[in-house]
Amino acid sequence: MRTYLVTQSDHSLDRGTADVVRAAIEGGVDVVQLREKHATARERYELGRELRELTREADVPLVVNDRLDLAVAVDADGVHLGDDDLPVSVAREQLGDGAIVGRSVSTVEAAREAERAGADYLGVGAVFATRTKDVRADDAEIGLSRVEAIAEAVEIPFVGIGGVTSENAGDVVAAGADGVAVVSEITAADDPAAATRRLRAAVEDRRVEA
Amino acid sequence: MRTYLVTQSDHSLDRGTADVVRAAIEGGVDVVQLREKHATARERYELGRELRELTREADVPLVVNDRLDLAVAVDADGVHLGDDDLPVSVAREQLGDGAIVGRSVSTVEAAREAERAGADYLGVGAVFATRTKDVRADDAEIGLSRVEAIAEAVEIPFVGIGGVTSENAGDVVAAGADGVAVVSEITAADDPAAATRRLRAAVEDRRVEA
Ligand code: NI
Repeated sequence: MRTYLVTQSDHSLDRGTADVVRAAIEGGVDVVQLREKHATARERYELGRELRELTREADVPLVVNDRLDLAVAVDADGVHLGDDDLPVSVAREQLGDGAIVGRSVSTVEAAREAERAGADYLGVGAVFATRTKDVRADDAEIGLSRVEAIAEAVEIPFVGIGGVTSENAGDVVAAGADGVAVVSEITAADDPAAATRRLRAAVEDRRVEA
Repeated sequence: MRTYLVTQSDHSLDRGTADVVRAAIEGGVDVVQLREKHATARERYELGRELRELTREADVPLVVNDRLDLAVAVDADGVHLGDDDLPVSVAREQLGDGAIVGRSVSTVEAAREAERAGADYLGVGAVFATRTKDVRADDAEIGLSRVEAIAEAVEIPFVGIGGVTSENAGDVVAAGADGVAVVSEITAADDPAAATRRLRAAVEDRRVEA
């Protein structure tokens, strides 16, 4: 889980999300999360089925943001949950042991709690202040010291998210993250495949072996 | 399915939705739909579990708006889906034959299509222009003639929704609806139990026997 793409068509320079995902796969992305915050469930369902084909062909895991029913409907590998979503325990119950269940956290305590609740991985952030407009007030910058603290506190893998670029991705994994998750760094890149390769190289370069 | 309550705490005069549902049950409501448009999934999950206890005790079906996963999580009897939600076929697949699957429609064609897709009942509307502020642009008034046309077009039961009061509920069932669904007429009533009884009496009075 070194490079993790979170989709958002309105940060994709008028390219379709499927095209961005295709390019990210070409660049070696490890995980794709279907987010599309502003789309209806029906739209995400249609898009999710398309992404499932692409990711399955490439053997790349697909997780769905927020909704278990959507994850089941598109035959995704799992879900990614936040504070406002259904609990990890409910996801585990509905999706089974084989599903990937991820959880967004920003504190050591929340990271420990998510691990105890059975999350398979964490999204930790916002590591840096993000450049995108639709950041929620609680997406405050947690910084690299918090990444270090969470790396010490939990055993499950995690990606750093929030303001991550190929410039600072190395610092994030050097602080203990297993990889990085990005939206715009890939979706809004001139060349999403090249951006993914750059990100991947930055992570490989300074990744701490567990 | 004569009286059908759709919950919305911000149209409930600062009363909790659980209190409104308790009163509606006392007044003889036939179905409760957990909607709460402005709440997070986590909030609806907590509230849904509370409503499940109340409705189960009273033997009143509980359906959840939009989300199949939430319906499963609170052990609801089914879901209610709109144009922006997952398709009826996906709901049937995930929830099984025993689940109640409802569908919002506003045209004869959509009503026929939902029936073909396996919906158990329809919410037909908006029958009248609604008084609430957060009505979507496509919630245009369809009128009683459309209710009549849909009653002729489909076999499955349906409730008329949108601007329904105890004053006009009789006209809606006289036009062919099996019952009426309301938000504010119950949630914002001085006495929600009495409002439910009034509505029920209005429906009984002019209901067309199938
Ligand atoms: Ni409202």
